[in-house]
Amino acid sequence: MKGVIATRAPHASVVDVTHGIPPQAVLVGALVLRQAAPYFPLGSIHVAVVDPGVGTARRALCVETASGCFVGPDNGLLALAADGAGIRRIVELTDERFFLQPRSATFHGRDVFAPVAAALARGTPPLALGSERSDLLRLALPAPTSDGSLVRGEVLHVDHFGNLISNLPPALFPAPPFAVTVGDVRIGAVSETYAGVVPGTPVAVVDSFGLLEIAVRNGRAADVLALGPGTPIVLTPL
Amino acid sequence: MKGVIATRAPHASVVDVTHGIPPQAVLVGALVLRQAAPYFPLGSIHVAVVDPGVGTARRALCVETASGCFVGPDNGLLALAADGAGIRRIVELTDERFFLQPRSATFHGRDVFAPVAAALARGTPPLALGSERSDLLRLALPAPTSDGSLVRGEVLHVDHFGNLISNLPPALFPAPPFAVTVGDVRIGAVSETYAGVVPGTPVAVVDSFGLLEIAVRNGRAADVLALGPGTPIVLTPL
Amino acid sequence: MKGVIATRAPHASVVDVTHGIPPQAVLVGALVLRQAAPYFPLGSIHVAVVDPGVGTARRALCVETASGCFVGPDNGLLALAADGAGIRRIVELTDERFFLQPRSATFHGRDVFAPVAAALARGTPPLALGSERSDLLRLALPAPTSDGSLVRGEVLHVDHFGNLISNLPPALFPAPPFAVTVGDVRIGAVSETYAGVVPGTPVAVVDSFGLLEIAVRNGRAADVLALGPGTPIVLTPL
Repeated sequence: MKGVIATRAPHASVVDVTHGIPPQAVLVGALVLRQAAPYFPLGSIHVAVVDPGVGTARRALCVETASGCFVGPDNGLLALAADGAGIRRIVELTDERFFLQPRSATFHGRDVFAPVAAALARGTPPLALGSERSDLLRLALPAPTSDGSLVRGEVLHVDHFGNLISNLPPALFPAPPFAVTVGDVRIGAVSETYAGVVPGTPVAVVDSFGLLEIAVRNGRAADVLALGPGTPIVLTPL
Repeated sequence: MKGVIATRAPHASVVDVTHGIPPQAVLVGALVLRQAAPYFPLGSIHVAVVDPGVGTARRALCVETASGCFVGPDNGLLALAADGAGIRRIVELTDERFFLQPRSATFHGRDVFAPVAAALARGTPPLALGSERSDLLRLALPAPTSDGSLVRGEVLHVDHFGNLISNLPPALFPAPPFAVTVGDVRIGAVSETYAGVVPGTPVAVVDSFGLLEIAVRNGRAADVLALGPGTPIVLTPL
Repeated sequence: MKGVIATRAPHASVVDVTHGIPPQAVLVGALVLRQAAPYFPLGSIHVAVVDPGVGTARRALCVETASGCFVGPDNGLLALAADGAGIRRIVELTDERFFLQPRSATFHGRDVFAPVAAALARGTPPLALGSERSDLLRLALPAPTSDGSLVRGEVLHVDHFGNLISNLPPALFPAPPFAVTVGDVRIGAVSETYAGVVPGTPVAVVDSFGLLEIAVRNGRAADVLALGPGTPIVLTPL
């Protein structure tokens, strides 16, 4: 992919955000893209490829937003970030003149998305890449619930540090004091920092993207607690 | 290595292709280099270091080709890519004025190959780097065989996704219909895409570099099938 | 972090040194930074983040040296490299106008160190970033000892290849011949190269940063020998 971009858009500056998304983990890729994209310059071209449906009828997209373009498969990978940036236009990548020829059925990162990104970097308007569409695929994220007392969420994914990232922003927290319970593990109150507990102990913090996170100080929470995506989290007023 | 290049050739654009080649896996490095190099711009300088013989009498090379230069140890790492690009000149890196001083016996990536690449990026002609040689080391790749009916190949390596990459290009496939068997696992026909089978099931595809690949949809074939490099693959006409 | 720098200092050239430091391993980060930094151009801005105390009262620093600036937490991560480069001024990062707003309590890499590095890249003098301090935190590295005959050191860390890196430079070696023993494993003499022993065998070499290293040829010493940081190393004159 980098070779294709270096060949077709030699003046483009290419930045690696991550190569650590687990294979086929479209939701994890979508969450990371949503987190990283807002910090990049206006007009950035974000290319994301987690693409288990490569070669099938799944669409390939360029989503134009208020802050830049998102290029990748239409499998939910782009939608969280694009919605966050403010979608202006959704273009299905149908003009094969922008693709590598021949095009493989197993690596559209190289054959479709990288050359399309290079075309955008050279100034090609998104609408020239294909046909405008009215929608894109959105993953059904598990929604937190609240009965006015207990707040229930769950672990969405495990990050590089083994931290358990939830779907619970502070806006949904009950009035303090309240306790955090993840699976069968009662953590207690939310701490300001990882250092709010002794080493080896679980700690709940608000992470740097505004979500409740369960960590273990100086350890890997996912391993120490043997918990992962889908584990319920309950916030209980005290 | 990047610091050396940034110091000696500050205007060079440095691109990371991979840091994921397993230690000492010269063949895997050679295969990946052969796959990636053709997509880079004409005149690129490819630096590759998988170098278990570092510090011994193994030669250090700059191989000039029709599409650019390949710099690295003469242990087979460069030959597949350089042959593919069309070799014009093989230069042994003997002029120590281009090396870092002192030169370690354990990290020629930093002390020999990076400074030589920087010299090339500054316009030094390859022949100025040392002495012309008439050959380079080529790894003996296992060759597919065919008796006119059965075609036999093997798994060459396991990629980042756990896919089993073979030495069988479509030009060697029997006339369809035929079945693919890897080890004791009968896969059936070659699919167009990974999504040609149900999740968790083995699938044979032609990969994005034109080789038969055994995958498991949404899984890691090497783990699910417990197979790896050297496993026989047989194509049986039906 | 890269997005913040690309936004605030678009002309800065960003180089990834490593993303492979184990979580919370401040000493490993400090050793790698000390090794890599001297190879980068004069005036480089080195940003390092291994930061288990993020959000606590631990200070954030810019250390100005003869060869460039080091930006990161004041937890020992910067001191080895900065001391090696020649410290000129230590500045605590107290001017919040250079930070992202709001600033999280869990990711100062993005919210403090990256924007400060961008400010330096735009020409902001270090002293404008905060208040000058007279010291920084230094990790207590285990010191080698010698009784005039036996020399004793230990394994400091395990590198990417599984090699055991010690705290013993050649200046401390006894007069040859001497034998190297790591834990209960007697290695024998120091070899010039990894290829000085048969594959699968332990070998002692001087690594590319001038420290005694215990490797296993074509293997991972840490796994084969089941040894790691803290293992004693003894050099015994023969």
